Amino acid sequence: MAIHVITGGAGFVAVNLAGRLLDRGVGVLALDDLSRGRRDYWEPFAGRDGFRSEVVDLTDLTAFRAALAPAAERGGVSDIWHLAANSDIPAGIADPAIDLRQTFMTTFNTLIVAKEVSAQVLHFASSSAIYGDLGEQAIHEDIGPLEPISNYGAMKLASEAQIRAAVEAHLPRANVFRFPNVVGVPATHGVMLDFVHKLRATPDTLDVLGDGSQRKAYLHVEDLVEAMLFIADKAPARYNVYNVGPSDEGIHVREIAEIVRDRVSPAARIRYGTGSRGWIGDVPRFRYSTERLARLGWSPRLDSRAAVLRAVDQIVAQETGRP
Amino acid sequence: MAIHVITGGAGFVAVNLAGRLLDRGVGVLALDDLSRGRRDYWEPFAGRDGFRSEVVDLTDLTAFRAALAPAAERGGVSDIWHLAANSDIPAGIADPAIDLRQTFMTTFNTLIVAKEVSAQVLHFASSSAIYGDLGEQAIHEDIGPLEPISNYGAMKLASEAQIRAAVEAHLPRANVFRFPNVVGVPATHGVMLDFVHKLRATPDTLDVLGDGSQRKAYLHVEDLVEAMLFIADKAPARYNVYNVGPSDEGIHVREIAEIVRDRVSPAARIRYGTGSRGWIGDVPRFRYSTERLARLGWSPRLDSRAAVLRAVDQIVAQETGRP
Repeated sequence: MAIHVITGGAGFVAVNLAGRLLDRGVGVLALDDLSRGRRDYWEPFAGRDGFRSEVVDLTDLTAFRAALAPAAERGGVSDIWHLAANSDIPAGIADPAIDLRQTFMTTFNTLIVAKEVSAQVLHFASSSAIYGDLGEQAIHEDIGPLEPISNYGAMKLASEAQIRAAVEAHLPRANVFRFPNVVGVPATHGVMLDFVHKLRATPDTLDVLGDGSQRKAYLHVEDLVEAMLFIADKAPARYNVYNVGPSDEGIHVREIAEIVRDRVSPAARIRYGTGSRGWIGDVPRFRYSTERLARLGWSPRLDSRAAVLRAVDQIVAQETGRP
Repeated sequence: MAIHVITGGAGFVAVNLAGRLLDRGVGVLALDDLSRGRRDYWEPFAGRDGFRSEVVDLTDLTAFRAALAPAAERGGVSDIWHLAANSDIPAGIADPAIDLRQTFMTTFNTLIVAKEVSAQVLHFASSSAIYGDLGEQAIHEDIGPLEPISNYGAMKLASEAQIRAAVEAHLPRANVFRFPNVVGVPATHGVMLDFVHKLRATPDTLDVLGDGSQRKAYLHVEDLVEAMLFIADKAPARYNVYNVGPSDEGIHVREIAEIVRDRVSPAARIRYGTGSRGWIGDVPRFRYSTERLARLGWSPRLDSRAAVLRAVDQIVAQETGRP
């Protein structure tokens, strides 16, 4: 049985991906240091054939190698889905060492072990953050200049660059998925979970960072996972880069605040801050081109607003324990 | 006296820059681990007012901080010229840890100390290698996609990204110089020095990697240093990126081989290999746009062929001890 390794394997995207890979009949080895991922996210897979998990710090190359050794014996590692990264952008701006270690060094080490175990494909969860703030331009994959404004975006771009060089030197194939904010469950962070928490703590008021005018594209994690599998199946080149996202121009933070308020605490008053950026490194708006992926034959089921509506329902259920 | 720090301060570009900075009446602190730079390159500056040097491994943050402490007391660090990097691209492809440490981690640590000493400007020696192989397109600064094909190029792009994010977070100003092959003295590596060495070892034959059809743009180091100073004086933004190079489309390896042969051992036979790339990660040809810098008001004195001719004369003098 060919093994697919997932780094950051107890994270939000990973646990959605793992189920779909198991459905396809491949073995899954989920690796995670549990710094942000959670062990209980693995529970649904405990009984499933072909699923294994290991707690390991991927910045420790010796430990990373040791974690892969049994899989290499079991049937060989065919694919690595590299999803491990810091997911807290403001924390990474306060301390650049966070994204260096969690976002970049995990990639650097993944490329070393990919070569050692002769993995055939590396799939990489990159980010729209590599583009920085390109204003009102439509952001397609070949646009320049690339000027990330957060250390997270910088270390995602660094990761892409290192992967591209590896394809030149030894890696048979790589797929790079650049996606914006992804929503769904299990939710560990993000504006929707934040709003739900705030309203459960203070049901009469919702304080919003910034003036609410930020507009962002949101992708539902279920759509993201379908896109990743589609690209893995269909992308034609040795090195493939795809924007993955909705084709709309996004939804305003103000609308998100209202959706959560209406769902959680309809009588609450929403209080906005000032400025169009919530924090340093936050890109206030962008127009995301997903034409390349549409030409390959895939489009998301949910647009930004539908993704947010579905995610808010799922997050409220997660937080209250009520479906 | 404001201090300008030069990392990789005993390297080829650095020692050309140091003299020009001292001419301007600023203090210079040259930092180098002497892994590639050479202590004797500092000898010409030993008697000059305001010049200091320190042997230090910049990947050791504690040592880096300690090396800067006296300068911070002497009058403050106003500028950092970050030139430290691995300069052996094939070595970096064989072992990615080389460019991680020498090309990227030196940048990462430079940004940390730049913040700590409140440096006003970071000047960064980037590279045309960040562009990868864009074929026959004219390579301007805003082109995409950026797909470096060597770890050196990847870690230069990673460095740019981290610098860009630092400008967003704390760094007052940064200038990024992207240049192709630079020639001149003191020569430590490169195709011209390689050919001179080969012909001095075997005066009847010159073996050339590849079929000689590679064409590259060459910039003379004296022009490069002038361009860097010009950009430092004139660039208008907080984050400035400039291609620096000749405006021609370059010179073929075949012509370089003939120039060196004619100068060193006119009777030698030149034997070519096969293929248009000398090694993995080598970009066979490119068209380099330097229009942005021309619009700012600067152009090089020497085109690629003139730069090579001057450099070959200088390298032969360096190697034979005869002017």
